[in-house]
Amino acid sequence: MNSKPKIVILGAGYAGMMTTKKLMKRLQPEEAEIVLINKHNYHYQTTWLHEVAAGTINHNQARIMIRDIINPNRVRLIYDAVVEVKREEQLVVLENSEIKYDYLVMALGFETNTFGIKGMDENAFFIQDIDSCQLIREHIEYQFAQYKNSEQKDDHSLTILVGGGGFTGVEFIGELAERVPQLCRKYDIDRNIPKIINVEASPSILPGFDEELVAYAKKSLQERGVELKQGTKIQSCTKEGFIVGEGHELIKAGTIVWTGGVTGNSVLGKSGFDLTKGKVTVNSDLRAPGEENIFVLGDCAWVMNEAENRPYPPTAQAAMQHATTCANNIRALLHHEPLQKFVFSDKGTVASLGVTDAMGTILDGTKLYGKPAAAMKKVVDNRYLFLLGGLHLFLKKGKVRPF
Amino acid sequence: MNSKPKIVILGAGYAGMMTTKKLMKRLQPEEAEIVLINKHNYHYQTTWLHEVAAGTINHNQARIMIRDIINPNRVRLIYDAVVEVKREEQLVVLENSEIKYDYLVMALGFETNTFGIKGMDENAFFIQDIDSCQLIREHIEYQFAQYKNSEQKDDHSLTILVGGGGFTGVEFIGELAERVPQLCRKYDIDRNIPKIINVEASPSILPGFDEELVAYAKKSLQERGVELKQGTKIQSCTKEGFIVGEGHELIKAGTIVWTGGVTGNSVLGKSGFDLTKGKVTVNSDLRAPGEENIFVLGDCAWVMNEAENRPYPPTAQAAMQHATTCANNIRALLHHEPLQKFVFSDKGTVASLGVTDAMGTILDGTKLYGKPAAAMKKVVDNRYLFLLGGLHLFLKKGKVRPF
Repeated sequence: MNSKPKIVILGAGYAGMMTTKKLMKRLQPEEAEIVLINKHNYHYQTTWLHEVAAGTINHNQARIMIRDIINPNRVRLIYDAVVEVKREEQLVVLENSEIKYDYLVMALGFETNTFGIKGMDENAFFIQDIDSCQLIREHIEYQFAQYKNSEQKDDHSLTILVGGGGFTGVEFIGELAERVPQLCRKYDIDRNIPKIINVEASPSILPGFDEELVAYAKKSLQERGVELKQGTKIQSCTKEGFIVGEGHELIKAGTIVWTGGVTGNSVLGKSGFDLTKGKVTVNSDLRAPGEENIFVLGDCAWVMNEAENRPYPPTAQAAMQHATTCANNIRALLHHEPLQKFVFSDKGTVASLGVTDAMGTILDGTKLYGKPAAAMKKVVDNRYLFLLGGLHLFLKKGKVRPF
Repeated sequence: MNSKPKIVILGAGYAGMMTTKKLMKRLQPEEAEIVLINKHNYHYQTTWLHEVAAGTINHNQARIMIRDIINPNRVRLIYDAVVEVKREEQLVVLENSEIKYDYLVMALGFETNTFGIKGMDENAFFIQDIDSCQLIREHIEYQFAQYKNSEQKDDHSLTILVGGGGFTGVEFIGELAERVPQLCRKYDIDRNIPKIINVEASPSILPGFDEELVAYAKKSLQERGVELKQGTKIQSCTKEGFIVGEGHELIKAGTIVWTGGVTGNSVLGKSGFDLTKGKVTVNSDLRAPGEENIFVLGDCAWVMNEAENRPYPPTAQAAMQHATTCANNIRALLHHEPLQKFVFSDKGTVASLGVTDAMGTILDGTKLYGKPAAAMKKVVDNRYLFLLGGLHLFLKKGKVRPF
């Protein structure tokens, strides 16, 4: 019998992978057994999914085999889907087995939220995971191949309609603005026929972002032929497209993608956690309220910015910082030491607008635009690969595209 | 006014391109005006279409810009579709204009023939041209992307069903046997799930081919997981698949491709030519019966093998030989010299079974199998590129894949 305390980490996204890495460093092998559970045998870059969906990067560049990063002799790896957590029994139920825990890290990531918009679940694609994004990429190209081969051509079939002008939506249309001209060349189709249309209910895309940066993004996207329908509410989604606005206008499209909302993984609800908009509002030590031994991280958690009395935005950057605090706090629990509070350190945010364009802020709030911003975005992406897997991983999966 | 006789060539396939090339060599610029009319601004390798459809070569490798081969200062190039030929008026009607001729070369190629099999036109893809083959390639990959992303997986959606076990059908399934494992790796799908099924009504695939060669082909294909349903008649085709045999069994598939028959271009019928199974049975000088100035070449023509009292098989090899005779005979007409008879010189036939396998006969009837045959197939392909566009074209579009 193994009497070491067992730490079970659910999910190998940014939060789960980094927690596992940090625990491997902070704990001696004899101090605890570490178990990482994930649906697939690979970790993927959630922040690169929009590029997979647009087809501007290969899906294999966006995923990393977990075994290449986490030594399976040190950490037990289980590839299975989580069904629910039975907290009274300290038990995780998986599709094919179950496992007890002493300490639990819930880092199961996001699920797409359509806010009950009628027809959206049935008719729109989601930028959700590697599989869903490969399907978007193939669907888009299939529209071009069908158009080229059809005698009665429906120009709307080449329209790509993106619901939601937040970070993911904007980054996705930025990539589409690169990809669509490539597809036009491949299929000998006039670039003026395929349309890229973004629909956002707020008065502007990227609500909450700096105005100057947003203005820059709009100009960049519009100059490359993207149509922005801001202040436009989606009433419903049909097979044909979105019904929008007070006039219930139909915007027809061959490809419909919803990027307008995410929420925490539904396992949280099934496991009986108290939820606020689908996520657990965690204590400042990142534990779920009332739980001694359960941490909730990343897109499953609301972490409060106490100074401003609102949660920090759920980003990959934040998820990785959660991981550090969580690993420190699990070590503290094992050593009967006091737990630390999570403090977010904002390194800035850069939104990609395509291969050679981007915009955002860094560290001290300095604004960056264009190629320097695009270069910085790649620095951010590559820095993560260094943190996760060192030079080897950077060289293997890094973004060293010329710009 | 231009008083030079005008030679109009319809179609830039093997026969049309080579006729144009030969006429450029055999005639002085002042002797005649040469006009080449083609639907697209590119020529494509009909014999490579099965590779485009399977996705084993890029469609751009299989097509060649006509301007790169034919000097537009010497030959007038018109990119338009032919509607009909009005023989009394010596006039070709195009979709967007019309043009008079003194000498006409009809080299408009083949159209797919479904022999009236119910539902085939509506539900099957055809290996017809670049556009239709790009659509097949994209359709197949889209099935894999959808399968991977769907919760209730229908294994039949990954089945590729090919009607017709002739040359094109066999070469196509040979390429699929290469492509499907690649797609399985790309989408993490078990290789045992996707099926490749060929249905042929004759007792064996490749009817008329040497028995030893056919036996070799069958073994090669079956060892790579292809299912051959020989002696199996297709009763009808539905959205779901083929209904076959006396028992009207349904073979379900996500991709249905018909390769079982071709006929001459339908412009022949619209122009009032006498047809035998959709083609013109030409005189031995390759002119249409009763016509002084109209030649019919390639897949639009039946050219009789008088020794055996049956037509030669309609191949790319034959089409290119037609071109030589036709160009010689047009020159003879201009010079009031006697016309020559077409004599087919059989250089052998090699059928590809994938990237590294093939089988066939060469020159003296020597049988070739496996890698030597695959190498010879590439020699044949590359020889044509030399003939058409010299070393430059070979280097640009040649098949120099390692084998």
